[in-house]
Amino acid sequence: MQKNHLEFWYEFASTYSYLSVMRIEELAERNQIKIIWKPFLLGPIFKEQGWDDSPFNIYPAKGHYMWKDMGRRTQQIGLSFKKPTVFPRNGLLATRIAFCGSKESWCPTFTKRVFEANFVHDQDIGNIETLKAILESLKLDAESIIDLSQNQENRALLREQTTTVQQLGIFGAPSFIVKNELFWGDDRLENAIDFL
Amino acid sequence: MQKNHLEFWYEFASTYSYLSVMRIEELAERNQIKIIWKPFLLGPIFKEQGWDDSPFNIYPAKGHYMWKDMGRRTQQIGLSFKKPTVFPRNGLLATRIAFCGSKESWCPTFTKRVFEANFVHDQDIGNIETLKAILESLKLDAESIIDLSQNQENRALLREQTTTVQQLGIFGAPSFIVKNELFWGDDRLENAIDFL
Repeated sequence: MQKNHLEFWYEFASTYSYLSVMRIEELAERNQIKIIWKPFLLGPIFKEQGWDDSPFNIYPAKGHYMWKDMGRRTQQIGLSFKKPTVFPRNGLLATRIAFCGSKESWCPTFTKRVFEANFVHDQDIGNIETLKAILESLKLDAESIIDLSQNQENRALLREQTTTVQQLGIFGAPSFIVKNELFWGDDRLENAIDFL
Repeated sequence: MQKNHLEFWYEFASTYSYLSVMRIEELAERNQIKIIWKPFLLGPIFKEQGWDDSPFNIYPAKGHYMWKDMGRRTQQIGLSFKKPTVFPRNGLLATRIAFCGSKESWCPTFTKRVFEANFVHDQDIGNIETLKAILESLKLDAESIIDLSQNQENRALLREQTTTVQQLGIFGAPSFIVKNELFWGDDRLENAIDFL
């Protein structure tokens, strides 16, 4: 990883990732930092910990608190937010698309639109039509991108990424890596930037 | 709960409680807030979630990260810290003592000394001698206080407190309650104060 680069690991179903996705670009610009967008799947990581659902569903008190906290935090930073009627939503296809296009210039905007679809407009981001509409709104060739994201190679690379995630010690989202140091949680975004 | 009062719920074995224990008095004074010290046992709460150990031990990646994060945070705020050789330490007797004396003027200082014993001096806070020495260093009648903390009534009240903790929706430590709103984690201490 080059100097002044920050790896931003996020998961589409993750509520706190939404906060960072919407905040990170302004912070990066202000601090002249390059963000490396790293969409990943938290499901396999959670499975290893024995969870087949979000810990916010498995542990109701934690979940109840998280929704309150999300409401307060989004209000505090002036971000729209509506508790989705389904949680967590299936982020597999969105992740395949963002992963496949993670080095393309459209990845950040695509990512933000998907998070807004989930956490502002209560749309099913697991539905191919939702994602197609987002890609089309960005004037992209939605069909080709979706096909590419679904091909054998991209799917295999995404599966292999889980090993990298484990090796990096990532156990939740969002996570930030700067100079080989891991920072976990939207609350640590500023600390990660300061560490650079 | 009266206006400008903040309930501070902490657990003696909890690393992040240490941060708040050492920070809260200065913040409270600066903001003219009265702290209500609420030592409690996290064990029964964790047991309900199916955990018979600290989640930082059950989930190694999370634990590994927590120790790194604690090292960084304590350095950032200028606090001494040494990773204890045993974690989590048994905080039952310390909790009984602090719970029994939670309205006494010595409770905050006793609490700080116990946290320092655990997280700075690597002492066994489950050992009655460690606690006796701390009480004596505060010029208190250690024997009487320990006897009182171990009596039937205090133990029963502490057991009953677990129901209160559950009803308040507390699932971790430190937690703060202001105007019936729950805030979890040392990172939310400032938010809890602002909420007043």
